[in-house]
Amino acid sequence: MQMPMTMQSSLVTIGKEKRLEGNVFEISLEGYKLFILDHPVPVQKKENSSPVGKAVIKEVTWKEDSTRLVYELIDLHGVN
Amino acid sequence: MQMPMTMQSSLVTIGKEKRLEGNVFEISLEGYKLFILDHPVPVQKKENSSPVGKAVIKEVTWKEDSTRLVYELIDLHGVN
Amino acid sequence: MQMPMTMQSSLVTIGKEKRLEGNVFEISLEGYKLFILDHPVPVQKKENSSPVGKAVIKEVTWKEDSTRLVYELIDLHGVN
Amino acid sequence: MQMPMTMQSSLVTIGKEKRLEGNVFEISLEGYKLFILDHPVPVQKKENSSPVGKAVIKEVTWKEDSTRLVYELIDLHGVN
Repeated sequence: MQMPMTMQSSLVTIGKEKRLEGNVFEISLEGYKLFILDHPVPVQKKENSSPVGKAVIKEVTWKEDSTRLVYELIDLHGVN
Repeated sequence: MQMPMTMQSSLVTIGKEKRLEGNVFEISLEGYKLFILDHPVPVQKKENSSPVGKAVIKEVTWKEDSTRLVYELIDLHGVN
Repeated sequence: MQMPMTMQSSLVTIGKEKRLEGNVFEISLEGYKLFILDHPVPVQKKENSSPVGKAVIKEVTWKEDSTRLVYELIDLHGVN
Repeated sequence: MQMPMTMQSSLVTIGKEKRLEGNVFEISLEGYKLFILDHPVPVQKKENSSPVGKAVIKEVTWKEDSTRLVYELIDLHGVN
């Protein structure tokens, strides 16, 4: 019995995030992704681009081979 | 930056589960627990007791240092 | 930055194990596989076959996208 | 059956590293620590200090509740 997953050290948004309120966003990603919660992680728009800021992931839900995150943007570098 | 978690190969309920409907239950556990989803896992009432059946975990949510599971009981051994 | 891995709740040997001494074996698996160490896990010869016994994994090494295990067979069901 | 572990997004050395050759070091850490291999991760001397450089982790071994890493320092910020 096995389950593939991916360990992530940054959040890659690819423009798929939705604002819930203020600086709090949600995003759905394909597959089961393992993140560190409750600490700042770099946010990138693409896999290989420079970080545009930092986010604290507040909630992670795994369901039907997808991952839903709720996160707070806490630091935004300039205007990208 | 680090995050403690616990890898689990069985679901220990300690009588804390709540029925959502039919054979579908939810349970909240302390800390971040890593489970295999979408496959049968043994269900125990206590950490060292014999399995009372099997469950398929359908959904896992990590939030505020706790883990919420939604699972379906698929196999129940006799009456414990 | 990300790394794929697979969470495993059983050890599937596919006949690739090598005896080190007595009941202690080593095996190399493709990719990064996450196992529970120091506790008995079911051993299967193929992904979907019945367990032939149990093993306690003593050591796991991840390197160059492969996983090397050292484990002790502790329980063998009959002669398969 | 369960196993505690800690997901890490940086390598905290606390001066315990040993040089193997050139820029390649090994270090032993208490407990089972989960790292991303084969990609640059920040290196810190203490848990809350600023990164002093980056390392690529080449090999991770879990054994007897400890983690041994082999890593290559690839980038060192100034002289700390």
